[in-house]
Amino acid sequence: MTAFTYDKRLLEGSEPLGELALCAVRLQADARYPWIVLIPRRPNLREIEDLDSADRGVLLAEILAAGAGVRAVGAALGRPVEKLNVGALGNVVPQLHVHVVGRRADDAAWPGPVWGFGVARPYDARALAAAIEAARRSLGL
Amino acid sequence: MTAFTYDKRLLEGSEPLGELALCAVRLQADARYPWIVLIPRRPNLREIEDLDSADRGVLLAEILAAGAGVRAVGAALGRPVEKLNVGALGNVVPQLHVHVVGRRADDAAWPGPVWGFGVARPYDARALAAAIEAARRSLGL
Repeated sequence: MTAFTYDKRLLEGSEPLGELALCAVRLQADARYPWIVLIPRRPNLREIEDLDSADRGVLLAEILAAGAGVRAVGAALGRPVEKLNVGALGNVVPQLHVHVVGRRADDAAWPGPVWGFGVARPYDARALAAAIEAARRSLGL
Repeated sequence: MTAFTYDKRLLEGSEPLGELALCAVRLQADARYPWIVLIPRRPNLREIEDLDSADRGVLLAEILAAGAGVRAVGAALGRPVEKLNVGALGNVVPQLHVHVVGRRADDAAWPGPVWGFGVARPYDARALAAAIEAARRSLGL
């Protein structure tokens, strides 16, 4: 049995929100979009198919919870989410992780995907605190 | 009760593979990547959360089946898939649909996302027939 470890690149540029039953939950530190990353805390995962059947169902439930979380962040920052984007890519960091991003027609990358688009814009301290609080409250963390 | 209809944009630039329990399954007509699109056949869907609980589980199973399908297409065309990309975006076409794309480190958009990247490259007739056959066999369609 291999112990679970994080690819360090998943921890850079994001803030911890807490842990759900399966996933570590992090807020991407990019003020352009409310954006949560879910990292299933199981060793040696690259694809959704690598999860066992029970964990797959939990992942889906946590994706939906993260959707509510990014909606809560958008609302708290006065920029309500208009569309959710959910993606599991892993081209840069192969360890399984799922992005849940709240999009608006006036956001930086619209209508294109956020991944690989431009450079992250840091939150100011007050907005970051508000985003973290809103996400945690929504997710029960 | 509203009848299910397709946004026409989901039918353009793709070839029908058949229907699974929940989703219509289409092969994106873009020879740059083995790429399947799943369209849940329920009316008025925009987000995964709009599906009822049972359908969500079926969608996840069909995403995994589509992953095997794109692997089969990649193998049939001599370009085995190295990483799956799964995405539900809907920024351009809001009707719920899920992309399952087989990626390789030597593909056109790597390591960026495929969505919005460049212009689709048509399959030649023989490769398209081989791709459709491989996908259908893998998916039991």
